[in-house]
Amino acid sequence: MKQYLTATTASVLALAVSQALAADLEMANKIRHEGLYQSEVLHTLEYLTDEIGPRLTASPQMTAANQWTLKRLQSWGLKNAELHPFEFGRGWSSSASSIVLTAPRAVSLHGIPVAWTPGTNGPVAGEVMMFDVNTEAELAQYAGKLRGKFLMMGEDLKIEPPNTIIFERLGSDKLNSLKDADVGARPSYESAMTKALRASRKQAYQFNKALSAFLVKEQAAGVIYRSSRQGGLVRVFGKSHKIGETFGVPAIIIEQEDYGQLLRMLDRKEQPQLTLDIKAQFHDDDKNAYNTLAEIPGSDKNGEVVMVGAHLDSWHASDGAVDNGAGVAVAMEAVRILSKLKVKPKRTIRIALWSGEEQGLYGSRAYVNDFLASRPAPTDPAEKALPRYLWSSPGWPIAPKAGYDKLSVYLNMDNGSGRFRGIYTEGNVAVKPVFTDWFGPYMDLSSGTVSPRSTGGTDHESFDDVGLPGFQFIQDPLDYSTRLHHTHIDSIDHVIEDDLKQASVIMAGFLYEAAMAEKKLPRKPMPTPASTVQQQRQDLESQKERRKAELEAKSTLESGQL
Amino acid sequence: MKQYLTATTASVLALAVSQALAADLEMANKIRHEGLYQSEVLHTLEYLTDEIGPRLTASPQMTAANQWTLKRLQSWGLKNAELHPFEFGRGWSSSASSIVLTAPRAVSLHGIPVAWTPGTNGPVAGEVMMFDVNTEAELAQYAGKLRGKFLMMGEDLKIEPPNTIIFERLGSDKLNSLKDADVGARPSYESAMTKALRASRKQAYQFNKALSAFLVKEQAAGVIYRSSRQGGLVRVFGKSHKIGETFGVPAIIIEQEDYGQLLRMLDRKEQPQLTLDIKAQFHDDDKNAYNTLAEIPGSDKNGEVVMVGAHLDSWHASDGAVDNGAGVAVAMEAVRILSKLKVKPKRTIRIALWSGEEQGLYGSRAYVNDFLASRPAPTDPAEKALPRYLWSSPGWPIAPKAGYDKLSVYLNMDNGSGRFRGIYTEGNVAVKPVFTDWFGPYMDLSSGTVSPRSTGGTDHESFDDVGLPGFQFIQDPLDYSTRLHHTHIDSIDHVIEDDLKQASVIMAGFLYEAAMAEKKLPRKPMPTPASTVQQQRQDLESQKERRKAELEAKSTLESGQL
Repeated sequence: MKQYLTATTASVLALAVSQALAADLEMANKIRHEGLYQSEVLHTLEYLTDEIGPRLTASPQMTAANQWTLKRLQSWGLKNAELHPFEFGRGWSSSASSIVLTAPRAVSLHGIPVAWTPGTNGPVAGEVMMFDVNTEAELAQYAGKLRGKFLMMGEDLKIEPPNTIIFERLGSDKLNSLKDADVGARPSYESAMTKALRASRKQAYQFNKALSAFLVKEQAAGVIYRSSRQGGLVRVFGKSHKIGETFGVPAIIIEQEDYGQLLRMLDRKEQPQLTLDIKAQFHDDDKNAYNTLAEIPGSDKNGEVVMVGAHLDSWHASDGAVDNGAGVAVAMEAVRILSKLKVKPKRTIRIALWSGEEQGLYGSRAYVNDFLASRPAPTDPAEKALPRYLWSSPGWPIAPKAGYDKLSVYLNMDNGSGRFRGIYTEGNVAVKPVFTDWFGPYMDLSSGTVSPRSTGGTDHESFDDVGLPGFQFIQDPLDYSTRLHHTHIDSIDHVIEDDLKQASVIMAGFLYEAAMAEKKLPRKPMPTPASTVQQQRQDLESQKERRKAELEAKSTLESGQL
Repeated sequence: MKQYLTATTASVLALAVSQALAADLEMANKIRHEGLYQSEVLHTLEYLTDEIGPRLTASPQMTAANQWTLKRLQSWGLKNAELHPFEFGRGWSSSASSIVLTAPRAVSLHGIPVAWTPGTNGPVAGEVMMFDVNTEAELAQYAGKLRGKFLMMGEDLKIEPPNTIIFERLGSDKLNSLKDADVGARPSYESAMTKALRASRKQAYQFNKALSAFLVKEQAAGVIYRSSRQGGLVRVFGKSHKIGETFGVPAIIIEQEDYGQLLRMLDRKEQPQLTLDIKAQFHDDDKNAYNTLAEIPGSDKNGEVVMVGAHLDSWHASDGAVDNGAGVAVAMEAVRILSKLKVKPKRTIRIALWSGEEQGLYGSRAYVNDFLASRPAPTDPAEKALPRYLWSSPGWPIAPKAGYDKLSVYLNMDNGSGRFRGIYTEGNVAVKPVFTDWFGPYMDLSSGTVSPRSTGGTDHESFDDVGLPGFQFIQDPLDYSTRLHHTHIDSIDHVIEDDLKQASVIMAGFLYEAAMAEKKLPRKPMPTPASTVQQQRQDLESQKERRKAELEAKSTLESGQL
């Protein structure tokens, strides 16, 4: 029928649709004014990053961030502010560290401890040796050889010329390709690709336990990892935060340039010697971590909810400004704007600032599990004892809880501090006209590109995995992945205030429209285990993603970061 | 007459010219084979950078580099190898340093000491304070306020988004623009532009002396400078190396990100506290520094000489790989190739590896002054006591010495490690056909662009300033100025071996052709003091360069690096 539609009929229909869906333009004016000209977003970010600093999950600084965000949200008039606890493990922090090459020549190197590894209890001197071991079977050959040694964890890799472009805004070509993209769903949990990735991660996880026990027994002085970014950047990770699984010897990550130099000295038989001094503490007073929650209560719609969120935790290398202070500051600014405007939303607007994201979406998964939909844990006790990301099944069936039908949408921000250029619909084609409409009042600020693509790796996954609408915006990449992500320069210096303001305004606009809409947002069907045919098809379709994931898995294995 | 030349006549003439100038293609074949397939250039560079390390002028490591290059050149069969001494001042080295923020929160910062500043004699703790002072008159207000304090040297500057492109090879557009460029001579010593630059440098020099005396008297704990590159890079400089002028208190340069954080803490009245520990030593056993010299003696041409050179000294932040281990390794490799091929050059081929370049072309100026042409020093004792770069006149008249008429050409390399894409003729239009011809056998490896442009800031200037032909090649910029120049990541990791091989081959080819050519290279007329008219014209023409230099001067002043 479509092809016989006359132009006039189409226009009339388009107008009708447009009117039915039209965003509240008067409210948009107010949101823009408050968000662009009365912004507090940078102030919020400065407190989180400069004053509190890094917010490693369950660390004292993360506790401070939970407390401060709770009070701040209350001070803006949000209600039902609370900390939502979930079981996590040990806290950890480091107050200082140094690594000095003392022979064959003397120079201070640049490194940062691996999270959740012990301190040195004062300066420790020792020889450096190569330790390129990736399996438990290879350990035995080192028996009796490691006492007092610093171990270089992995082979020398030549540093390639850097990415030519390190700072990018999306051009119309890239935006159009996102708009026209295939759905590109995330590979299913049961696909060959994710199975292979899980298998390699499980191997790394188990190897790390054996490695730790071996290094303790052999009395190694410490281990040295190579940063996974070049150019003087120290990019960090952590060992296990579980009680009873703490890595046994001090571990530090150093610049690729320093790492390569030590290995070349070994190659030349110059026997490099180091002095390592790491001040680090565990914090075992509380085995929980906490999400910060607060609301602007809804007046109508029978307890329905729209959510905005971002993870409050960060790695410890710097202040976690673009990962993910930016997302937190924007989510907070969005609800501040709405609260300041004294909106009376039909649905409750709830903000959630997650913890434990960096270690595997712990906070958001706990929230979903506690309030929205639970999934059965493995029955095998050995498998159940593994971290959730190693379970062979995500848990079927999904059991919806009271909140499941009440949630309209969850909006997440965790792709750096770049401005919003559009939104990913995670394969939910029914939301496209809705989002297009919601972008209406902000098209002068944004391209408003609506992409069918799926994105992974952050907290909206916890919602999407149980069939709830969870989304992320398309953001300008800036220098997020080229140099800031998890590195020692993820500080507020690299955040562009105008981008944060723009994102805050659009986030507030989307939240408001979601809270006021006649209907909840359309959902994809409830997830089911993927059929074999679907798995095979997905695997074929995602050759590119697979290769990328495999490379990442390899790099994960090499750095032993699980 | 030219316009009546027939096509045939032109071809015949072109052929004749081509034959007269033709490069020695058989020798080019041999040079290419040795330089591309039997290269030792990376091995040489590895020794200089990885084994010896940083080569600060007059430091023990620079002494080791002088000794090693001397022996290495001898081992390749070069003759008359010797160290050429010149008066320099103090040696300095640092074996380790740390700077730890202890309040309001605890974290290790990343810094490197300013060269030629004293160590701390163990860890020193103190409060941080702002000290944004640029003139002697402003010092008095701080009397009685600095005891035990760490002083932040200059205002907070917002970190701008990074250069989009950090790694670059020259495209044909840029090469063509170099080919077609105006002569673009360096501004004359007497021009308003260089006068203004000298005046600001003199002010900085004198301010630094007053500052040092004041800080010693007031017992400040130390001073903290902001790195002049962002993104976690520590870019270093030095204070005075002259005996009797040593800066009085410990000084360190820290990352822009760390610097900005300290200033924001001060703005918020959080009173940051630091512990600084710098291990540094002066080396006063020898007030000289040394150039390494060696030759492949010529068989003919009455003692005429062609020279190749590069500065062997580096800053202390890293291993001085692209500034200027690369230039040294290429110069050495060029003479190694020629020596290996047992060439019998008509003119002597001399290599000079300069010291003291980073502090103001000390080594090459001393060489020129001792052997090629001297210039009168100022008669005013006060002016004479200043560093040479602050003298109000370069010294007229130029007095040629015995070597002056014997030198055909000096070829320098000091623009990073990028491959040779052409050469700058420094306004000497008569050399264009010669260089074009010499590039002939290497046009498959290089664009062979011959530019009329002048370049400054390194040792060929010492030759050009007295009217001797000194040149530099056009090199691919790579990431030299965006992140490597004087920073803590100037290590061999960022050198591309193929580029060094290419440069070595072309350098060897040019040296051989220069040594064998029928005539010495054409020269520009002997320099004379610039006329007022010329100065005015130059100043008009170099608006762009002036602005750049002024900005650099401003940044120099701000960082107090003179």
